[in-house]
Amino acid sequence: MQLDRIHHVGIVVANLDAAIAEYAGTLGITPVVRELMADQRVEAAALEVGDSWIELIQPTDTESGVARFLQRKGPGLHHVAYAVADIAATLAQLEASGVELIDHTPRVGLGGHRVAFVHPRSLGGVLTEIVEDQH
Amino acid sequence: MQLDRIHHVGIVVANLDAAIAEYAGTLGITPVVRELMADQRVEAAALEVGDSWIELIQPTDTESGVARFLQRKGPGLHHVAYAVADIAATLAQLEASGVELIDHTPRVGLGGHRVAFVHPRSLGGVLTEIVEDQH
Repeated sequence: MQLDRIHHVGIVVANLDAAIAEYAGTLGITPVVRELMADQRVEAAALEVGDSWIELIQPTDTESGVARFLQRKGPGLHHVAYAVADIAATLAQLEASGVELIDHTPRVGLGGHRVAFVHPRSLGGVLTEIVEDQH
Repeated sequence: MQLDRIHHVGIVVANLDAAIAEYAGTLGITPVVRELMADQRVEAAALEVGDSWIELIQPTDTESGVARFLQRKGPGLHHVAYAVADIAATLAQLEASGVELIDHTPRVGLGGHRVAFVHPRSLGGVLTEIVEDQH
């Protein structure tokens, strides 16, 4: 297992435009990617900080996992994502070590990266994402 | 305002030894710093991921802010911290832009860094920390 870096921190927001304006005005970080991700029923924007992103995520309906998170907990920290060079090898290693995966095969995440989620049960309540993104 | 990178992601845990073992076994990341921080009534460990840390934080009493977080929400993501070169200049800029600070002057955080917290009200519910740490 080789995690290259923190790829991004995912933050759920009620209003993506307002959150982008708040982060720009407060911390001076601005979007480098913005996408409507129809399969997950969210719209997301990546704000660049050094070699990582802050990923702001707004639900686009009331039924998705992110929508339920927002209803239940309010806006706030949602997940942490690590960059790896080879996601298939990483998922095989995680499964071999008994980790509970949400995605057994990668799917496409923000910015076109191949991503997979690890169940929070396997990491002390923290929803964790693996992103294939080698610099 | 110039944020150099994500310095760390703070995660509240119920048992620091168990959490360290879980992160080592699952993700292969291990502590580079571990400290009892008596003034905050927590024990914390920093696990290295690239140029950032995962900061695991266990309360050492039942009354601190971290202890109340654990009681109310359970273990999980707690805060995100950004590295800056000059924390005094950064805090002055944040105050000038109307941001609500928890710490108006820096205090000492994990690893001896000068740190200050920004109120979650100013950043969409996310507790945010500034860390002076220039590479």
